Amino acid sequence: MPELRKDIVTGRWVIISTERSKRPDDFRPQQVINPDKENLVFCPFCSGNEAKTPPEVFAIRENDSSPDQPGWKIRVVPNKFPALQPGPPPPKKTKRLYQWMEGVGVHEVIIETPDHKQEMSDLPEEHLAQILQVFRLRTIEIEEHFHHQYVQIFKNKGKEAGASLSHPHSQLIATPIVPKRIKEEIYGAERLFRNQIRECVFCQMIKEEQVSGERLVFQNDQFVVLTPYASRFPFEMAIFPLNHSAYFRKISDQETFQLAKAIKQALSRLKTQLSDPSYNLVFHQAPNPKVSEKAWPGIDRYYHWHLELLPILTKVAGFELGTGYYINPVPPEVSAEYLKKEIQLKS
Amino acid sequence: MPELRKDIVTGRWVIISTERSKRPDDFRPQQVINPDKENLVFCPFCSGNEAKTPPEVFAIRENDSSPDQPGWKIRVVPNKFPALQPGPPPPKKTKRLYQWMEGVGVHEVIIETPDHKQEMSDLPEEHLAQILQVFRLRTIEIEEHFHHQYVQIFKNKGKEAGASLSHPHSQLIATPIVPKRIKEEIYGAERLFRNQIRECVFCQMIKEEQVSGERLVFQNDQFVVLTPYASRFPFEMAIFPLNHSAYFRKISDQETFQLAKAIKQALSRLKTQLSDPSYNLVFHQAPNPKVSEKAWPGIDRYYHWHLELLPILTKVAGFELGTGYYINPVPPEVSAEYLKKEIQLKS
Repeated sequence: MPELRKDIVTGRWVIISTERSKRPDDFRPQQVINPDKENLVFCPFCSGNEAKTPPEVFAIRENDSSPDQPGWKIRVVPNKFPALQPGPPPPKKTKRLYQWMEGVGVHEVIIETPDHKQEMSDLPEEHLAQILQVFRLRTIEIEEHFHHQYVQIFKNKGKEAGASLSHPHSQLIATPIVPKRIKEEIYGAERLFRNQIRECVFCQMIKEEQVSGERLVFQNDQFVVLTPYASRFPFEMAIFPLNHSAYFRKISDQETFQLAKAIKQALSRLKTQLSDPSYNLVFHQAPNPKVSEKAWPGIDRYYHWHLELLPILTKVAGFELGTGYYINPVPPEVSAEYLKKEIQLKS
Repeated sequence: MPELRKDIVTGRWVIISTERSKRPDDFRPQQVINPDKENLVFCPFCSGNEAKTPPEVFAIRENDSSPDQPGWKIRVVPNKFPALQPGPPPPKKTKRLYQWMEGVGVHEVIIETPDHKQEMSDLPEEHLAQILQVFRLRTIEIEEHFHHQYVQIFKNKGKEAGASLSHPHSQLIATPIVPKRIKEEIYGAERLFRNQIRECVFCQMIKEEQVSGERLVFQNDQFVVLTPYASRFPFEMAIFPLNHSAYFRKISDQETFQLAKAIKQALSRLKTQLSDPSYNLVFHQAPNPKVSEKAWPGIDRYYHWHLELLPILTKVAGFELGTGYYINPVPPEVSAEYLKKEIQLKS
């Protein structure tokens, strides 16, 4: 069973993942993942290899096809090496000076397409919208039935971004506690709402960015893509819904199509302008409504769900690790200047 | 002039470093740094190439040698591409919704040896102790004369750890504000001191680790090397002085020799047990005493300076970026088991 352990001084939790346990020999330099040279017979996410994953928990598939057989378009399976194990939310325990919990939670993989070589940025917008609908469905399912406090949806694309398999996939980890980073956003937004701005700070920021335009990359009727004022990384982007909402799970079908367009634009611009870097795509949403409504009443008014798109172009090094600050060698205005250039979409 | 910009929601500051400004073309994959194949004629940190760096601000050198000439043993120079520029501590400014400051501070490079191929772990303990004495000296100088709030000392070893030059060196960045991460440590330790423990939490933790021994890697009369209970990374180590002190700058000459022994042990074990990974070595100390004594009276009693040694063996990915939590595939007890094995030191 994995363990969640708390750093006593900073309050930061860490997952000590025994399922993924490694010995020093496992840390030899990895081979570069090259989709063209991979042996697709062995890819556990390819169509025909369904038996190589744990049984699927959900799939969008042809009407006459059976679970764990070919015929699917999007497939959700438990992670074979889960960071957290299934079970009911665990109590906090102490061990002398230290606090810990059993490593209980959910860790799922969303296989985005049966086609090994079709990246998220290559998918038709309708397909991408369906992936977003699957994210929504899994979030609701896990929040309603497993009662975990937070659902983190993310995509690691490329070896530099932490992907160990190149077949297009996203992941979802539900944690029994609300993560530090999300709490910081909630408390920050709540403080500004109460003391200063009296509206959602994200809404105000979006309006200002639309007026100035200098960090605006792309927008449509319902979403805006921008390079944040205090970007940590070169060519970092954030995607915000124009329709204020704390909960990604409340997104409408129609909005998923507009979000798919915005994501496709952002990913395609990254690929075109920057010779296809690895990236992390990270969802930020309010915690499980059952938790949020008790812990942060009114969160609906001041928190605003969004996505971060973080290309991996620089290394996080000693200064960042020591201070928690970042050094960004590209002003976000310069990043936006490159990223806002019109591009030809693939499909 | 670089800028410090504040993320309005989380309060995290970012350095937008114009001196290091890069265009998309600069982000092509870098060559692997291989010290054996490098052309030492061009290494700006090698003896004989002193003119390739800005003029030195300090050096330990032979008595009859001149500044910026060969004859030095340890040499301190301003970073040629500084993240922050020299100047007096700047005021905070606002730009509509956003806060920013001029990017004023200090960014120095400590060249640890004239010998390109002699890594920190290869240096004799006396030499390593002298490097620590130089860190102490520069910290005092910068805190007393430039009045910056925090001095971050760190070493990035290897490309994966963010080093762009392989010649052995450390860096020092002094910031006009106390970093988020340091504040978290100070507030955490202060809260535990006041409400619960009534002594330094670091002191109590060290004593517990000495008793249990399961995460203890090495100790001598004055320092202890351990794998922290809530380690974020495989084979992560922390080095603590047994003599309680908030300020690294108060270390005695005699202690620098004991710390040199502890660092050499930790680095050598990492190298031997793990086929020489890249790593970050990160100092954690109390802010400038002039700031600390006003902002955190009594910090001397509850804060405890220390070093973090972070080997780069895993990637920080979407889950970590979204949540601020970490997934560590190696329990620190397992890391300690490998790291505590006796090794033969090189010198």
